[in-house]
Amino acid sequence: SGLVHVKNPYLDSMEEDVLYHLDLGTKTHNLPAMFGDIKFVCVGGSPNRMRAFAQFMHKELGLAGDGEDLADICAGTDRYAMYRAGPVLSISHGMGIPSISIMLHELIKLLHHAKCRDVTIIRIGTSGGLGIEAGSVVITDMAVDSSFKPRFEQVVLDDVVVRNTELDTDLTEELLACSKEIPDFPTLIGHTMCTYDFYEGQGRLDGALCSFSSEKKLEYLKRAYDAGVRNIEMESTAFAALCGLCGLKGESSLTPAL
Amino acid sequence: SGLVHVKNPYLDSMEEDVLYHLDLGTKTHNLPAMFGDIKFVCVGGSPNRMRAFAQFMHKELGLAGDGEDLADICAGTDRYAMYRAGPVLSISHGMGIPSISIMLHELIKLLHHAKCRDVTIIRIGTSGGLGIEAGSVVITDMAVDSSFKPRFEQVVLDDVVVRNTELDTDLTEELLACSKEIPDFPTLIGHTMCTYDFYEGQGRLDGALCSFSSEKKLEYLKRAYDAGVRNIEMESTAFAALCGLCGLKGESSLTPAL
Repeated sequence: SGLVHVKNPYLDSMEEDVLYHLDLGTKTHNLPAMFGDIKFVCVGGSPNRMRAFAQFMHKELGLAGDGEDLADICAGTDRYAMYRAGPVLSISHGMGIPSISIMLHELIKLLHHAKCRDVTIIRIGTSGGLGIEAGSVVITDMAVDSSFKPRFEQVVLDDVVVRNTELDTDLTEELLACSKEIPDFPTLIGHTMCTYDFYEGQGRLDGALCSFSSEKKLEYLKRAYDAGVRNIEMESTAFAALCGLCGLKGESSLTPAL
Repeated sequence: SGLVHVKNPYLDSMEEDVLYHLDLGTKTHNLPAMFGDIKFVCVGGSPNRMRAFAQFMHKELGLAGDGEDLADICAGTDRYAMYRAGPVLSISHGMGIPSISIMLHELIKLLHHAKCRDVTIIRIGTSGGLGIEAGSVVITDMAVDSSFKPRFEQVVLDDVVVRNTELDTDLTEELLACSKEIPDFPTLIGHTMCTYDFYEGQGRLDGALCSFSSEKKLEYLKRAYDAGVRNIEMESTAFAALCGLCGLKGESSLTPAL
């Protein structure tokens, strides 16, 4: 049917669903009227960048007005920012798995309540490149954890549930084809490694703590490269797992490596 | 000596240290002049709330001006917001362990470069209360994970390192004594449970996914209560572990339960 599916038997019997961190709700807002025609959702860490992206989309789509005064749909909260340009929703998710998970739970419920169909979701955040030209865009075919495994370990109460992190193959190829139409736009397909920590978790030597040698760092990053990892960030496994479980069609992750 | 200590042998030989997510650096900013007299650091998730807290401190300390126009010291980035009021620094950390960890690494290096002494750091974020009156303030004696254990599992490259999450006993008692001077200010000391997920990790029945029954949720929360947990949030174990390792004196966590 192309609908987004929530997997929560309690949800339909709730009198009201408050999407607390988005400052939206089923009683306070007409979600089908506001969002029913959304076909693409783009998410990234920084609120300013997601605003700039919505303005860019506004211009690219040739919509009326200059797009400079797009309103933040989540203006009542400073947890996340959300903008729309035609059928495209642009939302910030902050940094790290817990932060993107809260946003995705509420976004998925929003798309469900709004009865959206055939939605494609793309993460366009930044990442650190691994053995590739700076500025390259990595289209993720598979999100892997710090052991290079395509899995997301989710703690549910005090049980650990392992979830799949594969992404949509067709969308990956489609995005790569798009990149070829643009000159001087280095783009590749690769695995994206997702860590819980920016400094110790990604082998940085400039954090407040560093207990490993430069050699050990390089050895780890080499093993990651050999396993197919081409960039490192902090959200992709949770993104892939949650979107996959809720049938968000064609999800993929697209991260420019700095 | 009361100094903050970084535990990174590479740091002192670096020509420049860029605190990227704070938009500060050792070459671009005179950190000792800007921050050398800081004695208290208060951190919480929301940038707006940390601004309001700095304004409140400005008034409480009787500083000149009305404090309404405090400048965001990290205005060049939208990752975190930072304000100061006299010797008090007020910083946002976003949501979840990865987000607070990035901020703390860079804050600890900032305090180190600025040669700050005898700094007390307090987290004043929100939390969900467990079997306590709504609006109560929980002063954390110990941060525990989702298995109720006082530990923080940090992935360093692909190794898991287990870190201690105890907090400063003297500060805990001092904060409790302060609360007694204020009428109608329900305050208690208890363990704070830190989870990686807001919905499935904290037993909520209103996420996009929910695979457990209401009974199983209640049974889990009862076990948490019996283990001494009085509130639940998403940053305390990383906060306790990182501050403890870097000798940030008297760290504690103070979270009003909603």
